Amino acid sequence: MVPRLTTALTGPLLTLERRFLEQESAIEHWLRGEWMEYAPPFYASVDLRNAGFKLAPVDTNLFPGGFNNLNPAFLPLCVQAAMTAVEKICPEAKNLLLIPENHTRNTFYLMNVAQLAMILRHTGLNVRIGSLLPDITQPTPLELPDGQTLILEPLVRMGTGGRRLGVAGFDPCAILLNNDLSSGVPDILQGLSEQFLIPPLSAGWHLRRKSRHFTKYREVARDFARHIDIDPWLIDPEFEACEKINFQESVGEECLAAKVDGLLYRIRIKYKEYGIEAEPFVIVKADAGTYGMGIMTVKDALDVKGLNRRQRNKMAVGKGGREVHEVMIQEGVPTVETVGTGTAEPVVYLMDRYVVGGFYRVNTTRGIDENLNAPGMSFTPLAFECGCSLPDCGLGPDSPPNRFYAYGVVARLALLAAAKELA
Amino acid sequence: MVPRLTTALTGPLLTLERRFLEQESAIEHWLRGEWMEYAPPFYASVDLRNAGFKLAPVDTNLFPGGFNNLNPAFLPLCVQAAMTAVEKICPEAKNLLLIPENHTRNTFYLMNVAQLAMILRHTGLNVRIGSLLPDITQPTPLELPDGQTLILEPLVRMGTGGRRLGVAGFDPCAILLNNDLSSGVPDILQGLSEQFLIPPLSAGWHLRRKSRHFTKYREVARDFARHIDIDPWLIDPEFEACEKINFQESVGEECLAAKVDGLLYRIRIKYKEYGIEAEPFVIVKADAGTYGMGIMTVKDALDVKGLNRRQRNKMAVGKGGREVHEVMIQEGVPTVETVGTGTAEPVVYLMDRYVVGGFYRVNTTRGIDENLNAPGMSFTPLAFECGCSLPDCGLGPDSPPNRFYAYGVVARLALLAAAKELA
Repeated sequence: MVPRLTTALTGPLLTLERRFLEQESAIEHWLRGEWMEYAPPFYASVDLRNAGFKLAPVDTNLFPGGFNNLNPAFLPLCVQAAMTAVEKICPEAKNLLLIPENHTRNTFYLMNVAQLAMILRHTGLNVRIGSLLPDITQPTPLELPDGQTLILEPLVRMGTGGRRLGVAGFDPCAILLNNDLSSGVPDILQGLSEQFLIPPLSAGWHLRRKSRHFTKYREVARDFARHIDIDPWLIDPEFEACEKINFQESVGEECLAAKVDGLLYRIRIKYKEYGIEAEPFVIVKADAGTYGMGIMTVKDALDVKGLNRRQRNKMAVGKGGREVHEVMIQEGVPTVETVGTGTAEPVVYLMDRYVVGGFYRVNTTRGIDENLNAPGMSFTPLAFECGCSLPDCGLGPDSPPNRFYAYGVVARLALLAAAKELA
Repeated sequence: MVPRLTTALTGPLLTLERRFLEQESAIEHWLRGEWMEYAPPFYASVDLRNAGFKLAPVDTNLFPGGFNNLNPAFLPLCVQAAMTAVEKICPEAKNLLLIPENHTRNTFYLMNVAQLAMILRHTGLNVRIGSLLPDITQPTPLELPDGQTLILEPLVRMGTGGRRLGVAGFDPCAILLNNDLSSGVPDILQGLSEQFLIPPLSAGWHLRRKSRHFTKYREVARDFARHIDIDPWLIDPEFEACEKINFQESVGEECLAAKVDGLLYRIRIKYKEYGIEAEPFVIVKADAGTYGMGIMTVKDALDVKGLNRRQRNKMAVGKGGREVHEVMIQEGVPTVETVGTGTAEPVVYLMDRYVVGGFYRVNTTRGIDENLNAPGMSFTPLAFECGCSLPDCGLGPDSPPNRFYAYGVVARLALLAAAKELA
């Protein structure tokens, strides 16, 4: 069960969604069994693409940055799930240190940090925010658009032999990272053996690879598909990976072109099998990339050969200016969802093993076969489904269930893949 | 943290509510610690009375019967909490048997059973409903007002030596009682050593006593009050108990009158201390009573001497016609809440250690010093607080927090008392 939410699509339920709803008990029981074996990450967000014929995750973020985009009505769900998560990882915890990304002017992101801190405070934790930024040498208040003030404090090593991390006058039992470590693990986070570090450092983008995640996801999708008797392709985006790429020097284009070609061929066969008229495409993206950087849509293997300077520049660097040398080629899943005049894709938020909310990433300047995490994007919170009159709504096993359920299922499969990845 | 709900009161926060809100982190942390020592009941509901100067539980129900009165928007919270509860008690459970009260025509109650079954199904359990009624000799469909059908099935002992309980073709791992066992434990529920029985049989009204619950509650209230530095009286209704009462034969009136007198005296002193103008009263109720039966409001010790036949008849029998021989005399807490033209009291629903919703019990025919669980009552679900515009609502630690928080705190203190009572 996931929250009843209003999604952008309003037509009849698609075949796959109906299948999930019919199999809800079997699905929930199967997931319960999996969570007994694999500990879910503390939190995550999953980008989904719903093509109508296929519903698949395309990215799983272990440092979610959009809690501020969730509908406030979700807050109790977030707090309840966070309580469960805290209880599992560090039940005695009283003080928690939150380490955010190194942004001081991105107010959207800072609102996320404030929201996350508030959720954690509601679970009964004292929360302070420690910054990795070298310029933060004293407590620094940042004004937020809603009138709140967020205080960033300099990190301090403390305890015997400096084996603990905190901020002045605050020795936390647990440290929650909301910094994805794209630039590697800073010295100040090394060797912290006495405190709970959530998620573990190995979840950072300095080590993590999308292709490894989607290898795990493929296993999960196959097990799950067997369990409810569907074709795993309906929920699993195919992919390939290329290492030793150097876009600036046009090194590795052969690998890229060959894999793009192979993948497009396989998609074409599947499209034929299902009678899908759409034009196959793939997404080439940095294997350790995030922030929507270093991503391109490709419909022909020739397109990745002889990239022009602009294209090479775009693909060559990821977040924080890091060079990209490994890429994933992922089956493109077109989106059928729109919000207003924008192309949209759902983003599902999870804490512990629970779906705690979601929103649409909307982009009015992009097409249905493009990355939407790009300039021009905005966010539309998903609303609780409460338009219907009280006596008819949510009462019985036979009431029309919400299509958001399918999103919650696929998001939790991606979460399970992340759990296996981190195990 | 509890859900943000709209309560009936709209004035400024009262002193006690403000104190709770200021101390939220300390309160949540304290509760987290208590739940590490005491396992919360699977589910419960708590009747509260808010007098403005005092906010106290007056009854804690371990077989809650109003899940159908919760706002449908709470469903995800219920399911999430139920998932946690199931995971703790019987993580491998696939089949669950629900045993309801012996009602077949009380459609309000049957809607509660349907709602509860639905919540449990959403956690991934197969749920069947087994009836203790001897007339149910085969699967019996009951039509509900919303068009659903509830199927009651006859209970069957099964397994080696008949040590298990189920219904035909259904062998459950867990049995959830929604029957309060007022008439004792039926033979068919005896000696079930192989299955999880939730709650334990000792939670039934054949054994349970309100006075024992409120003895535990007093301990909890004192610990809690010390922790956040308030007078425990502000959350704790005083009480006394009399055994060996026989209303029909006017036996035990002396005990009753003496205790009523002593209690009224103590209330008067406290009212003076706090400058409260209200007239003290006490509630006399069956110590093992439920369903709002056998309850009277008393303002003078003389009132319990020489009861007339009608009063004696009313007090002498409880649910299922059982004779009442033990009574509790509880400090009366007047309610300041109204819904429409009715006198109202909040009822808070809990699953595991989480507040999952609530409603007002409203009675247009009763006064602020009377039992509202009586003919003329109706239920008004508490709505999620989502009238405010998105950017202003629920965003920050400084946003005006909902007064429902205080209800959730006191309800959880009562839940903790129940946990200690069952431990």
